[in-house]
Amino acid sequence: MRNLMDDISLLEGYYMPAEFEPHEGCIMIWPVRPGSWPYGGRAAQKAFCEVACIIAESEQVYLLADRAHLEEARAAIEKAVTVKSKISGAEGETTEDVRNNITVLEIESDDAWARDVGPTFVVNRQGDRIGINWTFNAWGGNVDGLYPHWDKDDKVASRFCKRLGEKEFDAHPFVLEGGSIHSDGEGTILTTEACLLSRGRNPDWSRTQIEEMLCAVLGAEKIVWLPCGIYNDETNEHVDNICAFTAPAEVVLAWTDDPEDPQYAMSRACLEALERQRDAKGRSFIVHKLPVPEKPVLIREEDLKGYEFEEGEDMREAGERLAASYVNFYIANGSVVVPQFGDENDKAAVKILGKLFPDRSIRPVMARDILLGGGNIHCITQQIPSKKVKRGK
Amino acid sequence: MRNLMDDISLLEGYYMPAEFEPHEGCIMIWPVRPGSWPYGGRAAQKAFCEVACIIAESEQVYLLADRAHLEEARAAIEKAVTVKSKISGAEGETTEDVRNNITVLEIESDDAWARDVGPTFVVNRQGDRIGINWTFNAWGGNVDGLYPHWDKDDKVASRFCKRLGEKEFDAHPFVLEGGSIHSDGEGTILTTEACLLSRGRNPDWSRTQIEEMLCAVLGAEKIVWLPCGIYNDETNEHVDNICAFTAPAEVVLAWTDDPEDPQYAMSRACLEALERQRDAKGRSFIVHKLPVPEKPVLIREEDLKGYEFEEGEDMREAGERLAASYVNFYIANGSVVVPQFGDENDKAAVKILGKLFPDRSIRPVMARDILLGGGNIHCITQQIPSKKVKRGK
Repeated sequence: MRNLMDDISLLEGYYMPAEFEPHEGCIMIWPVRPGSWPYGGRAAQKAFCEVACIIAESEQVYLLADRAHLEEARAAIEKAVTVKSKISGAEGETTEDVRNNITVLEIESDDAWARDVGPTFVVNRQGDRIGINWTFNAWGGNVDGLYPHWDKDDKVASRFCKRLGEKEFDAHPFVLEGGSIHSDGEGTILTTEACLLSRGRNPDWSRTQIEEMLCAVLGAEKIVWLPCGIYNDETNEHVDNICAFTAPAEVVLAWTDDPEDPQYAMSRACLEALERQRDAKGRSFIVHKLPVPEKPVLIREEDLKGYEFEEGEDMREAGERLAASYVNFYIANGSVVVPQFGDENDKAAVKILGKLFPDRSIRPVMARDILLGGGNIHCITQQIPSKKVKRGK
Repeated sequence: MRNLMDDISLLEGYYMPAEFEPHEGCIMIWPVRPGSWPYGGRAAQKAFCEVACIIAESEQVYLLADRAHLEEARAAIEKAVTVKSKISGAEGETTEDVRNNITVLEIESDDAWARDVGPTFVVNRQGDRIGINWTFNAWGGNVDGLYPHWDKDDKVASRFCKRLGEKEFDAHPFVLEGGSIHSDGEGTILTTEACLLSRGRNPDWSRTQIEEMLCAVLGAEKIVWLPCGIYNDETNEHVDNICAFTAPAEVVLAWTDDPEDPQYAMSRACLEALERQRDAKGRSFIVHKLPVPEKPVLIREEDLKGYEFEEGEDMREAGERLAASYVNFYIANGSVVVPQFGDENDKAAVKILGKLFPDRSIRPVMARDILLGGGNIHCITQQIPSKKVKRGK
C-alpha cells in the first residue's frame, strides 16, 4: 500500500486558510438522494437554492449535479434567482451578479455533502492552491457508515479539481471528511476525538500519527481535540456542528444550560477541553456560547413517509432527534449564512453571530429541510480559498 | 525502545479469567494519601477494612502498606475483625478464618488503587498464572494525570509478584489500568474509547494496535468498545464504573431514565454500542440496567477541608459531582461487595444484583468515603484468579 507520508513533502509551504479568510468560491451539490431528502428533495432543494443565492452575492458558487439532474438544478437556481430579485429589490448586488456567480457543473455523487466529499483546499504564499482529496467512506465505511456505496462521493474531490484545473493532492488511504476539521489559518486545527478516533475511519493510525498527518497535509502545528460533538450526530460528531472559529483563538461553541438536555454534558466536556488547551501560537481560546435550539428538532411521522431508503442505508425513525445546531453556519465573503429552525433561540443565534462578524451580514435561512438530510449549511458547502500572494504576514 | 510485541509469545495459551470465576485472593492497598483521603483517611480506612473483611470471608486478602503504615493497617484490620465478629455473631464463617485470610504486606505505593496499579493476572489450562505489569502513569501522565509522581505505584505490580513468587510479564511501555478492562473469560474484553484512546496513555498506538496488544496479552479475540463511562469520572471514564460482566454475554450498565442527568446521553450511547456489537463467540449482549444514584453525590465543604493536596495534584472543589455508580462492585468467591451512597436507589441496586448473582450473598457497604478518593470498591480491589487445570472446557 502507498505510504502517504512519503509524498507529503509536495505540500511544503501550503496551509489551510480559515473559513473567515477571503474565498474565491464555494462548492455545493444538488440534493436528490431518496434516503436523505424526503419527497424527492423538493423542500431541501429550495433551501439549497436559497443558500446558493446568498453565497453567490459575494463569491462564486459551483453547484454539482449528475447528468439526470443538471437541468433540474439549473432551472431551480434560475427560479430562485428570479424570486430573490423580486423580494430583495435593489439590495446592492444585482440579480445578474448572483446569476453569473452560480455555475452548475456535471459531476455525479452519492449525496449532497460538499463539505465532506469536496476537496479541502490549501494555499501557499506564492499564490498556489492545491485541493486535498481525502478518502471518503460515508462516515464510517463498513463499520458504521450511513450508506452502502460511496464510490461516486469518493471521486468528487478529484473530479472537481480536474474540471476546474486545480492541482490535487491524493491523501488516500487516509479517511477524513471536511466537516471534521476547522482551521484557524494560523497553525491550529480543531477536531473531535469521537470522529477522528472512530473505528470506521483510520483504526490503524495512532492519535500521534493522525496529528502528524493532519499537520503535514494542512500546514498546521497543533491539533486541538474536543472529546465529542452534538448529541445524536450521525457523522460520529463532526466538529463543524459543535464548534467553529470566528477569529484566531476565538470560537463559538454549541451550548445549553439546560441539564435536561443530553447535550449539556457534551458541551461542558468540550468547554473544559478548550479551557485546558492552547492554540498553535500558545493563546487561550475565547469561547462564545451559542445556544442550541430551545426545543429539540425531531423527525416527524410525515417526514418519515417521504424518505426512500435503500438496502444497507441508515434509516430514520419518527421522534428521532436531529443534530440541530446554529454552529453549522457558512462564512461567505460578505455574509454568514446561519441555519434557523423556527425555534425560540433562532434570533439569539443571529444576534450573537452578528456581534462576532461585524463586517458581514448575517443571513438566516430556514434549515429544517436541510437538517432532515442529516447535516446543515456548513455541511452542504465547501469554501475555495482565494489564492494568496505573500505580503508582510 | 523495547518492542513489547516481540515478547508476547511468552503469553501463548494464557487468558484473563472473568471476575466471576474462582479467585485465590484479592489485592488491596491501605489508603493514606492526603490529597485523596480527607482527614488522614480515617473514614476511608474504616470502609476499606469493611470491604477487606467481607472479601476475606471467602478468599485471601493481601493488604499492601508502606513501612510507616504497616502497624496502623494491621491494628485497623484487627479492630475491624473484632467488631465484625461482635456484630455478625455466628454467621457461618468464623472470625478466625477472616483474620487468617488477611495478610498485611509491606509494599509502598503512591495511593490505594489496587485495581489500577496491581497486576492483571492471566492463567493457562496447565495451572500456570502470570501477573501482567502494565505501565501506570496516574491516569494520563503529564497530559491529564491526577498526581505528579507515580513511580511507586508503577512498581506495585512487579513488587507484589516478586513478593508472592508469582510469574510476571512486563508490559511496559504500554500504559493501562486494570479498571479500564473487563474480561468475560471467554475471549471478550470490554473497554471504553474515552479511556483507552485518551491522549495521556498510548497516543502512538493505533486503535487496531491496541486491540491486537490487548488480545495477545489477555488471550482474547474481541475487544468490545463502549464510547464513554460515568460523567465526571476522572480516570477518563474507566469501564469498571459503567459496565461489568455478570456472566458471559451478560452485563450490567449504569443507567438513568432522567434526562436531567448528564449521565443520560452517556449511558444511552453505551447501550447503543452494546446493542450494535457481538462478543468473541458471536453472541449479543443481554444488558441489565443498574440505576445510578437518584441524587448526585457531591463534594461538600466539610469534605474539602480534610484534603491536603500537593503541588501538581488534581484538586477537588465543593459541589463537584463524584462519579458514583453501583457498577463499581467487587465479585468475591462468596459475595458481591456493592457500594451504597445513602441514596434512594441503594436498595434497588442490591436487589438487581441479587437476582444476577443468585449463588453469592450481596453485601452492601457504605462507600461515600471510598468515593471521596475518586473510585469505589472495584477500584480498590484486584482479584487473583485461581490456577486452573485443564478440564473438559
